[in-house]
Parts: sequence; C-alpha cells; structure tokens
Amino acid sequence: MGWYLEHNEVPSDRERILQLGVTYAVANGYMGYRGTLEEYTADQFVACNLNGVYDRVGEKWRESVNAPNPLYAAVSVDDESYSVVDRAPAFHCQKLDFRYGLHRRKTSWKAGGQAVTVHVERFASMDDVHLLAMSYTVKVSTGGRIVVRTGIDGRVWDLNGPHLHIYDRGVKGDAIYLASLTQELHIPVVVAEICRRDFPAEERIVTTGEGIYRDFTFDADPQSEYTFWKFAVIYHGMETEEDVFRLALDAVGKAAQTGYDGLLKAHKRVWDRMWKTSDVKIEGDPEAQKALRYSIYQLLSCAPRHTDRLSIPARGLSSQTYKGAVFWDTEMFMFPFFLATQPGIARNLLGYRIHTLEGARRKAREYGYVGAFYAWESQETGDDACSHFNVVDVFTGRPLRTYFRDKQIHVNAAIVKAFRDYVERTGDERVLLEGGAEVILECARFYLSYLYYSPYWERYEVLDVTGPDEYHERVHNNAYTNRMVKYTLETARWVEDRLGEAYPDAWVELKERLGWEREAMLMEDVAARLYVPDPDPETGVMEQFSGYFKLEDCPLKEVRSRLLDPREYWGGDLGVATHTQIIKQADVVLLLALFPHEYSREVMRANWEYYEPRTEHGSSLSHYAYGLVACHLDMPERAYPFFMKSATIDITGSSKQFAGLIYIGGAHLGACGGSWILAVRGFGGYQGDGILTPRLPSTWKALEFTVYEGGTPRTYRVTPEGTTCRA
Amino acid sequence: MGWYLEHNEVPSDRERILQLGVTYAVANGYMGYRGTLEEYTADQFVACNLNGVYDRVGEKWRESVNAPNPLYAAVSVDDESYSVVDRAPAFHCQKLDFRYGLHRRKTSWKAGGQAVTVHVERFASMDDVHLLAMSYTVKVSTGGRIVVRTGIDGRVWDLNGPHLHIYDRGVKGDAIYLASLTQELHIPVVVAEICRRDFPAEERIVTTGEGIYRDFTFDADPQSEYTFWKFAVIYHGMETEEDVFRLALDAVGKAAQTGYDGLLKAHKRVWDRMWKTSDVKIEGDPEAQKALRYSIYQLLSCAPRHTDRLSIPARGLSSQTYKGAVFWDTEMFMFPFFLATQPGIARNLLGYRIHTLEGARRKAREYGYVGAFYAWESQETGDDACSHFNVVDVFTGRPLRTYFRDKQIHVNAAIVKAFRDYVERTGDERVLLEGGAEVILECARFYLSYLYYSPYWERYEVLDVTGPDEYHERVHNNAYTNRMVKYTLETARWVEDRLGEAYPDAWVELKERLGWEREAMLMEDVAARLYVPDPDPETGVMEQFSGYFKLEDCPLKEVRSRLLDPREYWGGDLGVATHTQIIKQADVVLLLALFPHEYSREVMRANWEYYEPRTEHGSSLSHYAYGLVACHLDMPERAYPFFMKSATIDITGSSKQFAGLIYIGGAHLGACGGSWILAVRGFGGYQGDGILTPRLPSTWKALEFTVYEGGTPRTYRVTPEGTTCRA
Repeated sequence: MGWYLEHNEVPSDRERILQLGVTYAVANGYMGYRGTLEEYTADQFVACNLNGVYDRVGEKWRESVNAPNPLYAAVSVDDESYSVVDRAPAFHCQKLDFRYGLHRRKTSWKAGGQAVTVHVERFASMDDVHLLAMSYTVKVSTGGRIVVRTGIDGRVWDLNGPHLHIYDRGVKGDAIYLASLTQELHIPVVVAEICRRDFPAEERIVTTGEGIYRDFTFDADPQSEYTFWKFAVIYHGMETEEDVFRLALDAVGKAAQTGYDGLLKAHKRVWDRMWKTSDVKIEGDPEAQKALRYSIYQLLSCAPRHTDRLSIPARGLSSQTYKGAVFWDTEMFMFPFFLATQPGIARNLLGYRIHTLEGARRKAREYGYVGAFYAWESQETGDDACSHFNVVDVFTGRPLRTYFRDKQIHVNAAIVKAFRDYVERTGDERVLLEGGAEVILECARFYLSYLYYSPYWERYEVLDVTGPDEYHERVHNNAYTNRMVKYTLETARWVEDRLGEAYPDAWVELKERLGWEREAMLMEDVAARLYVPDPDPETGVMEQFSGYFKLEDCPLKEVRSRLLDPREYWGGDLGVATHTQIIKQADVVLLLALFPHEYSREVMRANWEYYEPRTEHGSSLSHYAYGLVACHLDMPERAYPFFMKSATIDITGSSKQFAGLIYIGGAHLGACGGSWILAVRGFGGYQGDGILTPRLPSTWKALEFTVYEGGTPRTYRVTPEGTTCRA
Repeated sequence: MGWYLEHNEVPSDRERILQLGVTYAVANGYMGYRGTLEEYTADQFVACNLNGVYDRVGEKWRESVNAPNPLYAAVSVDDESYSVVDRAPAFHCQKLDFRYGLHRRKTSWKAGGQAVTVHVERFASMDDVHLLAMSYTVKVSTGGRIVVRTGIDGRVWDLNGPHLHIYDRGVKGDAIYLASLTQELHIPVVVAEICRRDFPAEERIVTTGEGIYRDFTFDADPQSEYTFWKFAVIYHGMETEEDVFRLALDAVGKAAQTGYDGLLKAHKRVWDRMWKTSDVKIEGDPEAQKALRYSIYQLLSCAPRHTDRLSIPARGLSSQTYKGAVFWDTEMFMFPFFLATQPGIARNLLGYRIHTLEGARRKAREYGYVGAFYAWESQETGDDACSHFNVVDVFTGRPLRTYFRDKQIHVNAAIVKAFRDYVERTGDERVLLEGGAEVILECARFYLSYLYYSPYWERYEVLDVTGPDEYHERVHNNAYTNRMVKYTLETARWVEDRLGEAYPDAWVELKERLGWEREAMLMEDVAARLYVPDPDPETGVMEQFSGYFKLEDCPLKEVRSRLLDPREYWGGDLGVATHTQIIKQADVVLLLALFPHEYSREVMRANWEYYEPRTEHGSSLSHYAYGLVACHLDMPERAYPFFMKSATIDITGSSKQFAGLIYIGGAHLGACGGSWILAVRGFGGYQGDGILTPRLPSTWKALEFTVYEGGTPRTYRVTPEGTTCRA
C-alpha cells in the first residue's frame, strides 16, 4: 500500500484497456501520456494528449490533439514477435510509481525454450515539460537475434481525428523527427527523438505513412540485458512564435546529452519539491492514504506549472474526453487544493481565465447579454466548445437539446470565487490589476444583464438557468445559482472598494475602459433585493429551485427501474429523473458546502438528509459536497464513503466510460480535488488561518497536511489527541 | 349543393364511422347527438354528449359525460335482423339538413324476395334543449312479422368511461326511464322516453344491465309504412337543484302530448330566427356557400342559448375530445361570430368566464401568482383539466411534459378581448358590473405578477411562455403574448376609466374588494415600458420570440421527412419542429390579424411571406389568420384556400383523428368561427360600423351578411359593383 499502483493482468477487453490507459498515465501539465504499453497503437488507445492544442475535423466536435507517439517500441526475437497484443505473456506487471510519476512495465514471454523479457520505465519530465524519457531493456534467456523497432508512431487514438497531417519526417543528426500540422488551424506539432544504447547493433531507419522508426538488429547473449534510452521532445505552435522544429531538435539533443539518469534526477527533484507542500499523510488507513496521494498525483501531474495560459481539463490529460475542455471543475473543485499548496499554479489557473476573457465576452454577446459569460467547455480561446445538443437520445438517435452551454451561468461565479479566494488567501492583489478585476466585473456585468426584477414581488430573480444538477434544466431561482450570483455581485463591489482604495488610478482607468457606471448603482439595489430561497421555516429544507418540491417524490430505486435502456440519459425532457425530485449531483448541498457559516446546523442537517437519498451521484463532483457537509455535521463516518468514492474513482475505474456511444471516461480531476478538500477541510476541519475543528474517521490515527498561510507553508498534524502546527 | 350533406356508403372502418358521427351530428347547446345510425351502439361510437357535465374515473383524465342513448332502435323481420352492422344494405342514405339540424337516414335491405326499408328523422330540439325527437318508419315489401326494439341504451361510447352508474330503470305511465349517477361527483343524469305509434302492436318492456327497451311486435302488410315517434328528455343535476327525475318525466309527457309535428315546427322556428341574423350568402361559389353555412350550423347548434353558465368546447358537442373542455378557441375564434350575429349568446359565453373566475384564481395561486389565470382546458369549475403531460411519446410510451397548462398565459388575453369587444360593440356596460370588470382586472393582475423588469435593458418582459405555436414551448418575449399582455393592461386601465367615470360607487366597491391599489401604479409603468418585439428594420419580419431566428431554418418538407414515426409529436424536446423555425400555427400572423392597423402593409406582407412557408398548419386555428392577413394584403386568391380548408374541415374529415393513441377528432368549432371571420372581415372587408373594404374572390358574385350594429342587425350585400346595406 505504498506510493504505487500495480497489476499483473494483460487487459483484453476494450473497457479495461481504456481504463488502464487512464489510471496509469503520466503527465506534466504540458502533456499527458496514457498508461499504455510500448507495443500498443491506436487500437489500444495510445495517446499523448497535448494541453491547449485543439482541432476540429469536418462536422465532428473540436477536441484536444494527441501528438504522435515517440515511445513506441516492439521487439522480435528470431523473427518471432513478442507483444502482449498477440502473445500471452508468462509474466506481466504494469506499475505506476505516483510519488515520481514513473511508469514501469515488465513482461516475459516463454516460447519453446526461450524466455523473452522486456522491462521499461518512462516519465513525462516535470523538469522540462517538453520531454518524455524512457529506458527500454530486453533480455533473452537462450540468446538470439533481436530486432527492436522503436520510433515516432502516428498511430494514436483519436475520438474525432485524425487531427494531424504529417508533412515531414526524417533524420537530423542523431535525431529522428516527425513534423505535422493540425487540420483546422495548421498548428505545427513537432516530435523529435534520440535513442541511445551502449552496445553495438545494426540500425536502419524505416519511414512509413504512419511514422518514422529505427530498427535495431543485434545478436543477444543469453541472460544479458540490452537497454535503449529514448529521449523525446514535443513542441507545438500554440506555445511559441519561434521555429518549433528547431526548438524540438535542440532540446532533444540537450536531453540526450544529459542522459537518462540526469533527466530522471531533475524530474524527481521537482516531484520532491511539490510533494513537500502538497502531500497529505493519513495514518491508520493505508487505503485512504494511497487513494488521496494518487488523487494529488493526478492534480499535480496535470497542472500547468510552465505557463499561465493553460488550465486543467475536466478529464485531465488522460484523453480527449469532453473535448479536452476546461470546466467549472477547475475553479470549484481543484482550485482550493492548488491555492492552499501550490499558489503559483493557482495563479496560472487564474491566468487562463484572464487570457480567455474575450471569448467569454463573445459568448455573452452571442446570447444578447453584456459582460463575460464564461464557456461551459472552454478551449484555447475561451469560446464555448459545448454544443446545444450535447447528448444523443438512445431511442431515436437524435441529438438531445441540453442547456449546459446557455443556461449554466453559475460557471462565472466559480471563476469569480477563485479570484477572490486567491487574493484573500495570498494577499497578492496584483492579479486584480493584471486582469482579475476585469474578469470579476465583467462576470458581474453579465449577471446584471441576465437577471430580472419582479415588480409585483419586489425582488430580483435569476430565471431560466441550469444549476449544478443537470437533470433539471431551465429552472427559475436555483438556490445555488442565486446565491452565487449574489456572491459575484458582492465580490464586484469588493473589487470596487479594493481598487478604489489601494489603486485609485488603475481603478479610474479600468472603470473608464469598461464603461462601468450604471453597474455600480444597479449592483447595490440588486444585492439588497436579490431573492435567495430561504430554508423552509418548518422543515429547514431549501427548495432547489422554484417548483422543485412539486415534482414527483419518487425513490431513486424506482426511478432507476423506469429506465428502458441502461444507456439512456436521465435528464432532458423524457429522462426518468427530469420530472421527479431525483437529482444528478449536489446542488443545494454544494451551496451549504460553500457557505457553511450562513446556515444553522439544523438547516444543514435537514438539507443533507433530504437531498442525499434523492441524489443519484451521477457526477463524480457530487461526493465531496455531501462528504464535506457530513463533516460539518460531525458525521465523519457518513462522510467517509463519499471520500473514498471520490478518491478512488480513477483507481477502481468504476465510473461510467460511455454515455450512449460517447466516450466519457478519463481521469476525474474534479473528484481528485474534491478528495483533497474533503480530507483537509472536512476531516481535518481546516477553516483557514490556523482554525481547525477536526472530525477524523475512527480509523485515522493522524492526518497531516500543509497549507500556505500568508505566503508561508504551514504543516498541521491532527490526531485524536490534538493538533500541532509547524512552519 | 343546398343546405344539406348526404352520402350513400355504409362506413366500415373505424375512422370513417368516427368521422361521420362528427359530421352528421345534431346539437342544441345542451347536448350533441352524434351522427350515428339507430342500430349502432358503443362499438360504432354512439354518444349523446352533455355540455357541462364532467366526470373522472380512476386515474384517467376527466372528460365530458355522454348520456344513455334514448334513440336506439333496431328492427328484425321474421326473426332476421336488419342492421347495417351485419347486413350490407341494397340502398343507404344518410343526410343532414343543416338548415334545420335534421338528421335523416334511409336504408333498404334485400334478402330472398323480401325488401326491408327504414327511414328515420331526428333532431335535438332548439326550442326545448332537453328534448330529442325521432320518427322511425319501417316497411317490408312482402309483409312479415316485424320486431322493433327501441329504448334507452346504456351502450354509449366513452373515452375514459364508463361514467354513469345506472341505479334505476323502469316504466312510469307512458314513459320508460333510466336514471344514473356520475362516478366522481354523483351527478344524476335522467333520461325518459315515450314512444307513440298509430297501429296496433304487442309491446313488451325489456330491461338489461345496459338499458331499458320496448319490443314492439306486429304483422306488417306488404308495402305499408309503420311509424314510431320517439320523444326523449334528458335532465341532469348540473343544471338545477330540482328533482331531475320528475322534471324529465313531466317534460317527456308534455312533449309526447305536443306530438312530433308540433315539436318539429317549434324547433324549425328557432332555426329560422337564428339564421335570420347569422346566415351568410355567397353567390357564385356553391361549395364555399355550403361549407360556410355548415360552419355556422356547427356554431349555432353547439352554442349555449339557454344559460350563461356554459360555453362551447373546442370540439363542440361532437365527442369527449380534449376532455370536452373549453379553450381560448371560444373567445378568439368563435366569439366574433356570436358577437356580430347573436349578441345574446355572446353574453352567455362571457357569463361562463365570470362564473369560472374562482377556478382561474385557484390556478394562479397554484403557480404562485395572483389574480386569475384561466384554464387552458376549462370545465365546469374553471379549474384546469389540462395535464402537465398532455402528449404520449411514441418511442417510449412515456408521457411527454407539455407546457400548455402552465405557460400558455395568452388565454387570459383572449378572454379579456372578448369582454372588451362585447362592451364596445354592444354598448352594454352592465356586463362589466356583473363580473366582467373583475375578470379583466384579475387577468391583468395575473400578468403583473407574471412579468419581469430587466434592470439592465430597462424594459418589462414576458418570460417563459408558450405562444399559440405550441411546437416552441417556454420561450421568452413571444411577440403575440407580449402584445396581448399589453392589450390586457390597456383594457384594465380602460375598465378603471369606464367604471370610475360611469359607475363610481361600483368602482370604489370593486377596488376595495379586490385590493386594487398598487396595480394602478404598476400598470402605468408596465404599459409604457413593456417590450413588444418590433419588426426588423431591414426585413420587416418580427421575431416570433427571442432566439427564434437563430433556430435552424429548414424547409417544412425536410422537417417532415425527419419523422421516424408518422404519429410522433412535432413539438416537445425531441420533436422534429422544436429546434427549427417550423411552427405549428399562426403566431406572429395571428398578432397581425388582430392588430392590422398597427403594422404597415410592408410589414404585414413581409411577415406573411416569411412565416407562411414555415407553418405546418398543424392546428385548424391557423388558416383563418393567414387568410385574413392575406385579405388585408389584397390577396383574396391566396386567402381562398385557407378559407376553404377552414370551412370544410368537418365536412371532409381531413384533419387528424389520432395523436398517437389519443383520439383528437371531433368538430373544429374554432375553424368554423374562423371561417365566418374570414368571410365577413376578410373577403367582405367589414371593419365595423359600416366601413367595408371588400376583396371578394373572383368567383364570388355577391357576399351578403348580417351584423349587429348598436343593437340593430344590419345586412350588407357586397358585390364587385359595390356595397349596399339594409337594416
């Protein structure tokens, strides 16, 4: 139960191969390399997913781009191929060391009297994000003629590809390279590779329509190990104006010069540094310990440390799922972890929203509003990649109109909250001047143009929205959304105050540039009279939205039993949940999780007890909120299953991989982030600035975590006996 | 091509039997007796539909009640049954004289050397609405032993029945009777019958579980005619507190005493009187003449002349379709005819809405509003009989959520318009004091509580409604609805002015009773700043609702080709029309039809040309608006097909009879009313008070119609040469 995952079976079915590709992936914020085996190709879902490069082919949806695979390697001995695809091994082990993001595999085949073994290690360098490195060792028991083919393989998995047009491949000095362009925007993606060895072999370059390879042929002694060290570098045109071809070749040369051990050392150094503030220790519960560390590994490995123009897609860098797009998941579920343990990354994540503000403005205008309306599915420009028809009806094959793109306006508030939390936690107000204030004000402005005043009821209302619970679309006065709109307006006023006070010139300039006049007056009135549903005075339960309580109150089990097809969508007009009180995920309870101090214990309990049995938890984002509120209610034992569900989701692979025919698998970065919040804020009871009200599960002997406070990381150790803190 | 319909075939398929039952029906506002044959029972959809009596059985929807059938009659000769159901006749003729609402049938069978003939006449008395009368004559060519069974038959068609529990049947003096109670509210429905003849026969009373009958047995001479005169009276507990059993028996005795000829004479006298002001003459186009007169017959025969507590269901008294409920069809499409030609009936129709105001108030409260929200499907109390799930999905069999009940708020405005038109046309302001003012103000109050102010755009908007076009539900700022809301508020202010000026005491009393204070102030502001979509400055086209122009602009033919099942619903979330610009029926064009003076000719033309090809005309209410606006645009030849479609719909039976598995056939009273409007206001160009701008179709040599002006009927004769008028 240490810092690794491992398993011994060779997966044969599609779902399992897909899942292992996710679970065993390595990544570094620039790219994610799936947990596939070296001899795999597109059929086994090999991909090296690039963060921030998107492409669209024909009428299919736009998605992130997978680079050609420079880690391809296959072996044959005496003209017999040894590959798990067509030969069952005698031994197989796939392992992920998630302390250091090291992927290892060892496989042995027996054929006749011969035993062939390969063992391989690879990593996506945390030190140089363009770099992949791999050591590939082969051994034969009785000697023989070995051919290893390795190179840059274009046979990678695409949902809606192929995205890359290969326009050049060849040899340049020690390196082979493959240069390609995306189909839509003609963005160059260049991969260069150098392969070193310390034994003689015949080397032949092979180019095919699909890639460029080297065939190494040599006679192996019995039981001797023959190792290839591969260095691969990727550059693409989204990150630089420079000649990416030269950049890649230069970089790969330097990497080879440094050598595998040196690169690995530098890579591990970064991991050591990151774990220092990001690790959470759980004593007494090795399973929880492992799952939480794995969750943190996912977050750290997918986070953009090298730039403030990227964020973290909902499915990390594990696949093209959900278009490789960034959702509210980042700010709502992942951001608190980074803010507490890696504030530099948190700042980068905010940068992404600053840089995509124009796209959000375009979206607001598209729907006839003003200000900024952030994308439900955000790619490189901030324009919304989400379609109005985001689900396919299983009965008719017709696209189903969903109101994710146009009605989930709460995305704005999640972003605003991240900015405000960042400033308040770090004290770093520069981000406001560097675009943050503009983001917040434009988000608020959008809400001002979206909301309405009821002259009869004398209150402002937020109409026609979809809250976090996507099974009930186009509702009025969703409690969560209304409160978050209010929060956004409060934050806009806080920005006015902060800037007006501390940076009066910048504030005047900004106000004038944005034409921010009426807003100030309007905001005051709106904030005072915005309707936020109150808890029912008798039951304490808040109505999720106007009319929710009038929906059929039907047990989850019965609703499930109404499914005519296991793949059918629960929401939409005809979905089994839509006209009942069954909800997809935490909605009111998420509100409670965010604003625990605004509600009494009785109200929290009443809502938890009311909504929990009515929640399908059809989204992995649901568990953390239920778990956190359970902790607030001193029910750590009821929170615990939510924690484990959230933290193990990508280890067990128990989540849905397909929605109808659409692949929705991949890593669940939001759940990973939720697990951290639940551990630290829930069980640890960390409320910020040294205040803790821990409620550890009974098996936990100690919980230790680090959080930045005023620029300094402080480590808390919570035990049943008490809490200690060290800087 | 005179005042009658006839046909000679005996229908064998279900659809045709259903349709003839509608087309050949007779009615008198109290009840409608379907155009079925005397030997028919429930299997052939026999029904005597009672206006204003409703019942619900189990979980099925509440619908109007059909009385037991007192006109049942079947003949056998020498122990051989002669019925069209199981013996093909040698000759058959069914005929409807719609000048006088007389149903006739004549049928001859040949078997061996024998020829058996029955000819029958019946009517629902316009003089005494409780009365049905029938003469039944039988003749055999070679003589024989005849048995005629006739009586009160409980085997009537019900969609959701059986509704009546028969608790008594028997003989009282000359009469037989059948007494029953509805299932839900135990409303008594009593049918009494007396049968006279002028020849000897053996008479035997037969009672079964299903009814009470007399068997008349006699030996017939060759070629002699033997006639039975049946007098039947129906009373029910919705119309009186008195003993309906005694009322029925007394009335049937008196009717028998008067005799068939006397009753027929009185009946015809009423028709003569009604046609005097309601007839429209078209010279040069006998088909149009016949169709329009038939439409007028439908309207007059279904109209409640005897009470102001009933209205006219959307499908008249032809069946239980649409729950036997009253829709906006009455006020929007039928009312203008009655107002112009039978103002007393118009007043009765208003009375129905006054008496059901409480139900409308309950509905407003149910949805969290104030004032009155009239039912989409109104029955005796004004509570809404419409379900939230009004359509069944053909693919899953699931009920489909429709927003007819809760979002078609425009029903209020149609009612308000009828009241105002009535007062303005008749000058009779008493109706305002007798409840009309309250209806108008409460309708306006509902709108005030429904609408919203956009603080950013500084205008009032009407959000989340369904306009006349039901394929696009839950839309914002439907042009038609917004304009009608504005009209309603204008009318409420007109009421304030009229009452305040002419009836100050009553006004003070009413204001106090309603608590009408803030409304006055609010109304002023709302009326000034209510958003009503303007014609596009470039194209002149008004957007049906916010976002309509962004929907896929796909030809009707292509949309139709996307149907996977011919029975599937075009609207709802997955309907083929929903996400396109294809609309069900006139929506913007209905607005133009109602407010022609507010829009330029160019705007009218632009909208007509834009919307017409995008209209499925899936509702029979669509044709009149397109026809009327075509007339306004001096295109009578393009209006003509709409007129004919509208006027002949119940003659040809070309409309849909089933929506999925739900029967939606029956008479189309709204289309009947629309035909009259189109003839008089469209082709005749009648604008009120003597102003006419006629545009006759080229074949029409003359159009002659009567309208009340200032309490006096005036008859206009429009010819290509000019117009004359006589009082």
